[in-house]
Amino acid sequence: MIDDAPESTAMADPANPDMPIEEFRRYGKTLIDWIADYLDNPRRYPVLASGQPGDLRRRLPPSAPIEGEPMERILQDFNQAIIPMVTHWNHPRFFAYFSISSSAPAILAELLTAALDVNAMLWKSCPAATELEQTTAAWMLDWLGLPSAWFGMIVDSASNSALQAVVAARQRAEPESRAAGLSGRLVAYVSEHTHSSVEKAAITAGIGRSNIRHIAVDAGFRMSAGALREAIRLDLSRNLKPFFAAATVGTTSSTAIDPVPGIAAICRENGLWLHVDGAYGGALGMLPECRHFLDGVDEADSFVVNPPKLMTVPLDCCLFYTRSPEVVRAAFALEAEYLKTDVRGAVDYMDYGVALGRRFRALKLWFVMRYFGREGLAAIFRRGLKMAAWLGEQVSGSDRFELAAPVNMGLVCFRSRQGDDATRELMNRINDGGAFFVSHTALNGRFTIRVAIGNIRTQWQDVEELWAAISKP
Amino acid sequence: MIDDAPESTAMADPANPDMPIEEFRRYGKTLIDWIADYLDNPRRYPVLASGQPGDLRRRLPPSAPIEGEPMERILQDFNQAIIPMVTHWNHPRFFAYFSISSSAPAILAELLTAALDVNAMLWKSCPAATELEQTTAAWMLDWLGLPSAWFGMIVDSASNSALQAVVAARQRAEPESRAAGLSGRLVAYVSEHTHSSVEKAAITAGIGRSNIRHIAVDAGFRMSAGALREAIRLDLSRNLKPFFAAATVGTTSSTAIDPVPGIAAICRENGLWLHVDGAYGGALGMLPECRHFLDGVDEADSFVVNPPKLMTVPLDCCLFYTRSPEVVRAAFALEAEYLKTDVRGAVDYMDYGVALGRRFRALKLWFVMRYFGREGLAAIFRRGLKMAAWLGEQVSGSDRFELAAPVNMGLVCFRSRQGDDATRELMNRINDGGAFFVSHTALNGRFTIRVAIGNIRTQWQDVEELWAAISKP
Repeated sequence: MIDDAPESTAMADPANPDMPIEEFRRYGKTLIDWIADYLDNPRRYPVLASGQPGDLRRRLPPSAPIEGEPMERILQDFNQAIIPMVTHWNHPRFFAYFSISSSAPAILAELLTAALDVNAMLWKSCPAATELEQTTAAWMLDWLGLPSAWFGMIVDSASNSALQAVVAARQRAEPESRAAGLSGRLVAYVSEHTHSSVEKAAITAGIGRSNIRHIAVDAGFRMSAGALREAIRLDLSRNLKPFFAAATVGTTSSTAIDPVPGIAAICRENGLWLHVDGAYGGALGMLPECRHFLDGVDEADSFVVNPPKLMTVPLDCCLFYTRSPEVVRAAFALEAEYLKTDVRGAVDYMDYGVALGRRFRALKLWFVMRYFGREGLAAIFRRGLKMAAWLGEQVSGSDRFELAAPVNMGLVCFRSRQGDDATRELMNRINDGGAFFVSHTALNGRFTIRVAIGNIRTQWQDVEELWAAISKP
Repeated sequence: MIDDAPESTAMADPANPDMPIEEFRRYGKTLIDWIADYLDNPRRYPVLASGQPGDLRRRLPPSAPIEGEPMERILQDFNQAIIPMVTHWNHPRFFAYFSISSSAPAILAELLTAALDVNAMLWKSCPAATELEQTTAAWMLDWLGLPSAWFGMIVDSASNSALQAVVAARQRAEPESRAAGLSGRLVAYVSEHTHSSVEKAAITAGIGRSNIRHIAVDAGFRMSAGALREAIRLDLSRNLKPFFAAATVGTTSSTAIDPVPGIAAICRENGLWLHVDGAYGGALGMLPECRHFLDGVDEADSFVVNPPKLMTVPLDCCLFYTRSPEVVRAAFALEAEYLKTDVRGAVDYMDYGVALGRRFRALKLWFVMRYFGREGLAAIFRRGLKMAAWLGEQVSGSDRFELAAPVNMGLVCFRSRQGDDATRELMNRINDGGAFFVSHTALNGRFTIRVAIGNIRTQWQDVEELWAAISKP
């Protein structure tokens, strides 16, 4: 299908080299219908792509076409070659990693973002993008009951947000390091269950992996505040400079919640920058019954919540907050003549992070927050939490399986009572048919299945059938 | 318009909390028509947003709605509140920064990307996304006549690509630094005209600004290879460790092309990692008459070309290449249990950069490369180059203005012969009516107007009228 000689449609009108506008209308509406059918009946696809590495690459020609090809053929290849190799994150039976989904209003907003194609690097380069970013960030603080004075922005990923936090912390601890480079004495603290992206951020920032301490966790996989205090004491006695600690609200392996108030107190006493990673769990703080998840977070120096994880916003769109924007700016800002403007009193977001190119990501968040409203999103969250709680009850009521961690959010961690091999075999059996996709982790050194529930299109039946697949004799 | 009491439409069906599918179809098609009209008749909008910082924020309510709101009202606000505050990068008379544009096929691909919402962090997490990324990256190397053995990937921005390059260079120069932190002896080299994002990357990586040398340029704003050699010699004599140099193919201020072959030889002799920033100019290498822009680039350790700049691909989508993927991987990879898979022989792109969350960005590049083909894109490029050359001739033929740099790509840099104040005044006059947006830089210490031509929808008439506005008595 890909090897036929192409017929060119592009460049029909040399004064307008783009696709003719009526062709855009026609294919745009075709794709809207395709997406409507996709979202309406996703279960026709296996969740997990089949095939081996290289299958798609080998099928595609080694070179791009010389002459343009008709849209019809591109879409045919999309359907026949691409789709079978897609792992469907937006599938109601995708229970791996942190299940994510994109809601219809967010998809529509992304369409507009692509059409406007603005760069929110400076206020002037698109005031609407900057101010909608400020607005949605402030709205989220309001929903979460966090300090309204915090500075908020949207970064692509929680990983790059962690990098911003580490670099800002470095700036505060050693302001001279921006010019002079690092002293080699800075020490960062994460827990054994902090997401690896925080460690990667510290390595990227030049801290050195041997200067990253992995603090022990308690029986509930929460960072031990006592162990943190002791580690800091020890490093100080060695003439090192503790400068950064990360606490997590909803760890990746078990959605544990670190004791943020205690950690915050230790950070304050010792002058550490406290970064709270609420990428997954933070959004749940908008539910009154879960607001305690965020206890102590108002003392953080930086805080992250990642709307793609639970809020039905497509990748990528991570909210980064800080109480000290002047430190973040001091870490990142540079004056280039070609980026100076005559505007006074505006935020130029490029000065607060690595990336100069910044998509209009706030638009999809704004669409979602308005279309669903707080109560609409709360209902979506509660539905997922209820499904996870139900599945957790089935597991703990069974004599063949055991919960590996309490079900406090939308994640169910469990294993076979027969040991790691049996658990691994069970996971493969669940995933092999393509009907479900669950992932795994290690808890207390044991292989553990993770079922993450949170896709907006997951139905009770999906969870019931997952349990039937798990518990099949 | 934003303050009325909302009527909720969300949650009509508690089993399906998303927008009803027929509503998605209806609004999706409405938006396709809106975008078609937008692309077809963009000149009805002023290029540059009007208003003052805070204008939009003040207009929006301080809190998000409790109950969901109808789509109708969200779109009404989009049109009435957002659009007037948008600076239209996709406008045919946007000549500021590097003029960018999103073509219709790329917009359609972004719609699909949002609907699929996959994360290309691992091969397994979406094989199609990983393999289309490998395929489009390889296709581009073929078009540019660069080594087919290079490893390619898509990063959000040229800024983050520069960060990857610096961190990889650091890893090669001081492999022990990943564990131990930095020695404080590493020195990086950029030119006075290297983009500020490279300096920001080095600062982020902990190199220290005082360890970044700004090598002098020649009369054509090209890095002086002799000055680079001398600077390295001097640093070596001080027992410092030169480790990284950036050369640019198409600088931001004047689209100068650094002498890459000479710089590459110096880097090779002294063991420096050579990063070539072709974010803007690199893509022009696909034109036979411009292929010499890339002379010497095949000796680079890393190379970047940013398809949003000239290739009509919407933000964000930056091609990052390296000859040493094992070094990049050694710099960034971490083993987290919850991200391990049983797949062998595949590339997991998360291991080659900071971000774990990675959108399916290859899809839009694939659509564009196929829809236009090499010849279609070449025609688009040549059209922009011809317009820039024409404008350059008008400027140099006038006795009121002078070119500040040769017009070798799609950028025209010029100033008034009456000095900086007159040039600044001219720029404000061009921009003030909202009919055009041009930006500025400094060349040889003098205020210089930059006119960047490259939007797919820019017509000859747009450039002719811009010249009329410039040359108006």
